[in-house]
Amino acid sequence: MDSQSNTENCLGWAATDPSGVLSPYKFSRRCVRLLLSFTFQVTANFTEQNNIFRPLGSDDVSIKITHCGICYADVIRTRNLHGDSKYPVVPGHEIAGIVKEVGCDVEGLKVGDHVGVGTYVNSCRDCECCNDGLEVHCEKGKVATFNAIDLDGTVTKGGYSTFIVVHQRYCFKIPNDYPLASAAPLLCAGITVYTPMKRHNMDQPGKSLGVIGLGGLGHMALKFGKAFGLNVTLVSTSISKKEEALEMLGADKFVVSSDQDQMKSISKSLDFIVDTASGDHPFDPYMSLLKTAGVYALVGYPSQVQFKPAILNQRMITLAGSSTGGTNVTQEMIDFCAAQKLYPQIELVPIQYANEALERLIKRDVKYRFVIDIKNTMK
Amino acid sequence: MDSQSNTENCLGWAATDPSGVLSPYKFSRRCVRLLLSFTFQVTANFTEQNNIFRPLGSDDVSIKITHCGICYADVIRTRNLHGDSKYPVVPGHEIAGIVKEVGCDVEGLKVGDHVGVGTYVNSCRDCECCNDGLEVHCEKGKVATFNAIDLDGTVTKGGYSTFIVVHQRYCFKIPNDYPLASAAPLLCAGITVYTPMKRHNMDQPGKSLGVIGLGGLGHMALKFGKAFGLNVTLVSTSISKKEEALEMLGADKFVVSSDQDQMKSISKSLDFIVDTASGDHPFDPYMSLLKTAGVYALVGYPSQVQFKPAILNQRMITLAGSSTGGTNVTQEMIDFCAAQKLYPQIELVPIQYANEALERLIKRDVKYRFVIDIKNTMK
Repeated sequence: MDSQSNTENCLGWAATDPSGVLSPYKFSRRCVRLLLSFTFQVTANFTEQNNIFRPLGSDDVSIKITHCGICYADVIRTRNLHGDSKYPVVPGHEIAGIVKEVGCDVEGLKVGDHVGVGTYVNSCRDCECCNDGLEVHCEKGKVATFNAIDLDGTVTKGGYSTFIVVHQRYCFKIPNDYPLASAAPLLCAGITVYTPMKRHNMDQPGKSLGVIGLGGLGHMALKFGKAFGLNVTLVSTSISKKEEALEMLGADKFVVSSDQDQMKSISKSLDFIVDTASGDHPFDPYMSLLKTAGVYALVGYPSQVQFKPAILNQRMITLAGSSTGGTNVTQEMIDFCAAQKLYPQIELVPIQYANEALERLIKRDVKYRFVIDIKNTMK
Repeated sequence: MDSQSNTENCLGWAATDPSGVLSPYKFSRRCVRLLLSFTFQVTANFTEQNNIFRPLGSDDVSIKITHCGICYADVIRTRNLHGDSKYPVVPGHEIAGIVKEVGCDVEGLKVGDHVGVGTYVNSCRDCECCNDGLEVHCEKGKVATFNAIDLDGTVTKGGYSTFIVVHQRYCFKIPNDYPLASAAPLLCAGITVYTPMKRHNMDQPGKSLGVIGLGGLGHMALKFGKAFGLNVTLVSTSISKKEEALEMLGADKFVVSSDQDQMKSISKSLDFIVDTASGDHPFDPYMSLLKTAGVYALVGYPSQVQFKPAILNQRMITLAGSSTGGTNVTQEMIDFCAAQKLYPQIELVPIQYANEALERLIKRDVKYRFVIDIKNTMK
């Protein structure tokens, strides 16, 4: 019963070194059913290192994963780009699936419910941020969904796997009529742009929004902008995205950022900007597009933010950072998408395509989010 | 009657070239009394270039200047540091004085009232910003109090002069029991920090404020912080200001920014920062002092703002630009200072000391604002 093979109850795909190449990998997760056979072994300190089954907690929800979105964070951790990868790394934090088991204290979720898990699976649940529903900003540090040390000392493993177990607080209900494949990208790409848009009151019909960058995040910002009744201008480095932005995604205007005449034509015209570009880029030209009291929400991670203070000060502009979102706003966003029938554009791929998908993501060759069909292809 | 000597009704001190050296200089301002003799000459297009008396408008207030604060903007324009000086430059935009004449449509102000004039003396009064009381952000451009082209085509001249004439909208009432000398610095230094502090809800007793830089603006931010009930930490490059900050100005804590241990001791402890430093400085160490959802108000003008996005994003920080303030908030601030008996620390100097005062300002050798005693020394 304590042999390694017995404890490895979950199949995932993991990177085992900085090459980042993913391959099948078995590991253990908390599991209530098996616990029943081994209660005599259970202590509060049981960890993965002991190779002993850990029990499902009373607040835990065990989820059969059906889909997992592919996010650039998966590239970063599988390839150790930030130097903090804890191999083997099972990536994935845009998780959608179906409840298969609940702990005795779980409320509002039952077996068979459709649910999602996002970029974090734990927090202290006791600090001011947690109490304010801003668990992602937990003062003791949120526990990321993969490649993080959980409160029990184990390394978290993400959604490129057959099931996951999380405390109910970090588990979101997905309405039954919302496709699970479409739900997956909401849990990171969606909430990352929705949070600052709501926090900074961008849901004012008739106002104008500029979206910088048309990738996974940018196309969601565009869709939310249209759903909020905004006039949306897509600003991109590439003219190649023009037709799709205007005709398929519904942008009102498309501007190529390198075209100074086009940029000048929308100078001081925008109420809001959501900047989703993660590559290094100048800020002054974009900031100059904002009106007085405009809000510039930054959700990307360029290596530096750099600009002259003149426009910021003279136009009383707010530059706002943001990072995914708390649990309340995440549930609100999912419900909003369901009510609005707002769906990400996805390319559904089998897990066997994950390595190629990550390569294509690096080359920005995706429209606009890869989602892995875990249910049908990970076996 | 049209000789130059007749039209030069105002004595000022002006810089005539980029040396910035100030010397006495006579020029003309709008003037109702003289208008009475020359009504036959009045047309809407009369300009200073015609060397003809311009009439006091029906909404104009003519003010005998008693005091004028010395702001770094005076250095910039008298020395042509921004390349846009229109010599002769009569600087000064922290003006306090006594009403000596009012146009027929002026309401709420009468001869003898104490009043102030700040950094702008005109705006379109028709755009969204003006209608919102944000005249400083007028869409057609505010008219600065000196070295700007006024709506009538003349070059504005500032408060280093015996009197000034402004539209009543840009004229603020100073309670009689508030010393005019103390009032002067409120009109730029005061409102520059008060505006973002109010706009970003820093008036929450018990919260914590960091003030970066202890000069004209910094010492006012500190005083407002204390008046708002905040716990105020002064962050300075210079230990020499410690005693004064703590004992005279009432800061709760003093931190030397180059001392990493001190900086670390207040890491992630502040709700708000008001950054008044105009010299180039790093932003990451200061931003790291903010808690989650902290607000970093920038009021200085370093040549660049530069930081890594990690703290901004992960702590959901807001970096807010600001530039003096609209007319409503300016009046509110003056009334607040009067009610709180909140006074800037000033060094009163005669106009004959202006050149030396500007030199000392450049060397930051002032505690904390020079105010020129116009009334008693400009004759």
